[in-house]
Amino acid sequence: MKAVGPIPAGYETKDGQLAVGGKTARQLVERAGRTPAFVYSRDHLTNRVAALRAAMPKRLGINYAIKANPFAPVLGHMAGLVDGFDIASGGELALAIAAGLDPSKISFAGPGKRDAELEAAIRKGVTLNLESENEARRALAIGERLQFAPKLAIRVNPSFELRGSGMKMGGGAKPFGIDQDRVPDLARQILESGAEWRGLHIFTGSQALGADALIEAQANVLELADQLARDIGGPLPKLNMGGGFGIPYFNKDRPVDVASIGEALEARFADLPASLADTDLCIELGRYLVGEAGVYLTEIVDRKESYGETFLVCDGGLHHQLAASGNFGTVVRRNYPSAIATKFAEEAVEIVDIVGCLCTPLDRLADKAHLPRADVGDLVAVFCAGAYGATASPSAFLGQGPAAEILI
Amino acid sequence: MKAVGPIPAGYETKDGQLAVGGKTARQLVERAGRTPAFVYSRDHLTNRVAALRAAMPKRLGINYAIKANPFAPVLGHMAGLVDGFDIASGGELALAIAAGLDPSKISFAGPGKRDAELEAAIRKGVTLNLESENEARRALAIGERLQFAPKLAIRVNPSFELRGSGMKMGGGAKPFGIDQDRVPDLARQILESGAEWRGLHIFTGSQALGADALIEAQANVLELADQLARDIGGPLPKLNMGGGFGIPYFNKDRPVDVASIGEALEARFADLPASLADTDLCIELGRYLVGEAGVYLTEIVDRKESYGETFLVCDGGLHHQLAASGNFGTVVRRNYPSAIATKFAEEAVEIVDIVGCLCTPLDRLADKAHLPRADVGDLVAVFCAGAYGATASPSAFLGQGPAAEILI
Repeated sequence: MKAVGPIPAGYETKDGQLAVGGKTARQLVERAGRTPAFVYSRDHLTNRVAALRAAMPKRLGINYAIKANPFAPVLGHMAGLVDGFDIASGGELALAIAAGLDPSKISFAGPGKRDAELEAAIRKGVTLNLESENEARRALAIGERLQFAPKLAIRVNPSFELRGSGMKMGGGAKPFGIDQDRVPDLARQILESGAEWRGLHIFTGSQALGADALIEAQANVLELADQLARDIGGPLPKLNMGGGFGIPYFNKDRPVDVASIGEALEARFADLPASLADTDLCIELGRYLVGEAGVYLTEIVDRKESYGETFLVCDGGLHHQLAASGNFGTVVRRNYPSAIATKFAEEAVEIVDIVGCLCTPLDRLADKAHLPRADVGDLVAVFCAGAYGATASPSAFLGQGPAAEILI
Repeated sequence: MKAVGPIPAGYETKDGQLAVGGKTARQLVERAGRTPAFVYSRDHLTNRVAALRAAMPKRLGINYAIKANPFAPVLGHMAGLVDGFDIASGGELALAIAAGLDPSKISFAGPGKRDAELEAAIRKGVTLNLESENEARRALAIGERLQFAPKLAIRVNPSFELRGSGMKMGGGAKPFGIDQDRVPDLARQILESGAEWRGLHIFTGSQALGADALIEAQANVLELADQLARDIGGPLPKLNMGGGFGIPYFNKDRPVDVASIGEALEARFADLPASLADTDLCIELGRYLVGEAGVYLTEIVDRKESYGETFLVCDGGLHHQLAASGNFGTVVRRNYPSAIATKFAEEAVEIVDIVGCLCTPLDRLADKAHLPRADVGDLVAVFCAGAYGATASPSAFLGQGPAAEILI
């Protein structure tokens, strides 16, 4: 038997079913029009940002990295909650504009920006987080051609990393950002160029759960920013301190202690060096803001036995839930939190394997899961589906196509 | 330094560039209209099927599993080369019909077929490879409702597996097919039902390179089919023997010795048991037929140094090449065969990392690769891109969208 927890807080039971926003799983599927469906909770998003704001210093801006979930209604809802947005491509810029986000609150990071993407961002007044000297030259040349001062920040590749993070984005040779030692020279060139200097972006990792590691990384970021600002010899208008706050996917995972992080940051902010006294400070979060707000619902189309094991075969699968299937940057497959949505109040009575509909052994949603009895027509819920689900999965694989998505 | 071979046979050099079908990489990109682009070679497909036919017994049918590459022009070209098609979803059925494939030559396997998919297949006269007793009941009920005799075969979950296969599809508890012991009962029910009995589908694994293992698996399949046919007590109209032929991705991989497999199969066919004397026999291949016929071309948009390492940042990445990035069912990341397409004739002079444009450390196309000097604007080629590339990757990730695809 393997764990199928932890189900995030905020999910309800109604008429024996999993419910979101007062609607049962069946009602949600009806609303979505079909299965499989991603259901995102407006309340969960609102509460998550509110709780984070309550824990963090008032001065700290909270940005949403839309790569985690660019579904238009989610973007629209987040627009009323956060202070800014981070995009990673021209495609995401188009999604952001279509969702009505304010371009002056958007910054654009990504190591492979094409000229057309730089141009679109510059025209819209989006801040570019420059990833190399070469990209800086291209952005300045495009700005000159357009007679339009580009808003330029530098993404720093710091010499330190975020301890315990699922994905390390700093520390050693990296394709992201500019090695910290070369940042001051480039910043001075930007200041001299007539471009609008927007400061620094220092990203150290993602999906970390330990408060100590996050506190240490933030302290290192502030220290490095101070050092760089002094080397540059000019004011730092803005500092994007990165993100890194993870969410619990597995039973031994503990939620990030945001209260401790907020307290530590408050203490740092009370004692900032002169170089950062007037700096606009923010963090950038994706998964932490939206990951637990989403659940994936898929219908059981077959229940079968093979050599004594029971398989529940669903109409969804890895084409929508690549990470949950254990096939995206994972070495050992572990079950995401999951449940029988239509038997949410019932006792677990059997051990089953939940698989997707794809004709490949990679398509597994839960192994050896202890669950209530489920039959054809029941709905399976996979939690933590709000981030890196729909768009981070190969939806065209085996001719399947995308899942439905709704915001409730 | 890490290996970047083996480049498949059939790729040429022209004007110092990689060429396919007499067109240089630059000309191919112009034809595709943009980068990144998948380029599939008509000649490679034709030659591959011809060589396979020459090696295999005349009696053996060759089916194409379209999941490997469902690009419409590829399907159209394959229609003139192979004897049948295997699909894995209603979506693939629609692609097959749109490409003009003959539905009577199509069989449909997949563990999670929905009623609407069963109905569409039955209406078109497609053979259903049944994955469970439950699915058989549903198919018969739909046939009755439509007053249309469904064509039914049984997918067998064999008690043996294909040794050395990248993905095991048989041997023990599996979501695929019906355990071999339960097959005769179900087959007799189908025979009595008035449905059109189409025989068996026995799939044992995929991506195997060893001829001995493939010969053994085929022998086991024929033996099991004979045993099941005798237990069923009726003729076996058709036997899909599965596939499993792999392609070399890494330096120590050797191509499948199809001559040996053909000889062994010829000997078996000369001495078939009575139960299989009139059986229509075929194998089903996907990756083997199309994998090496495709190359992915992506343009270098940045060349940067970080702590002494050189990174070539491309406009493509894991959103089109998930498996090549090492993030799809892989434990240890290894480089797919790759090259600088626009410097294809030049000497390797430097060690570089080739990364994609996505803002994630997962997006790597080649690590520590020994390659000719390449600059912004040069094209990178990733080989073995003909199978499980475009559709098996999360193309919407980070707002990127699909690559161009052309058949040359």
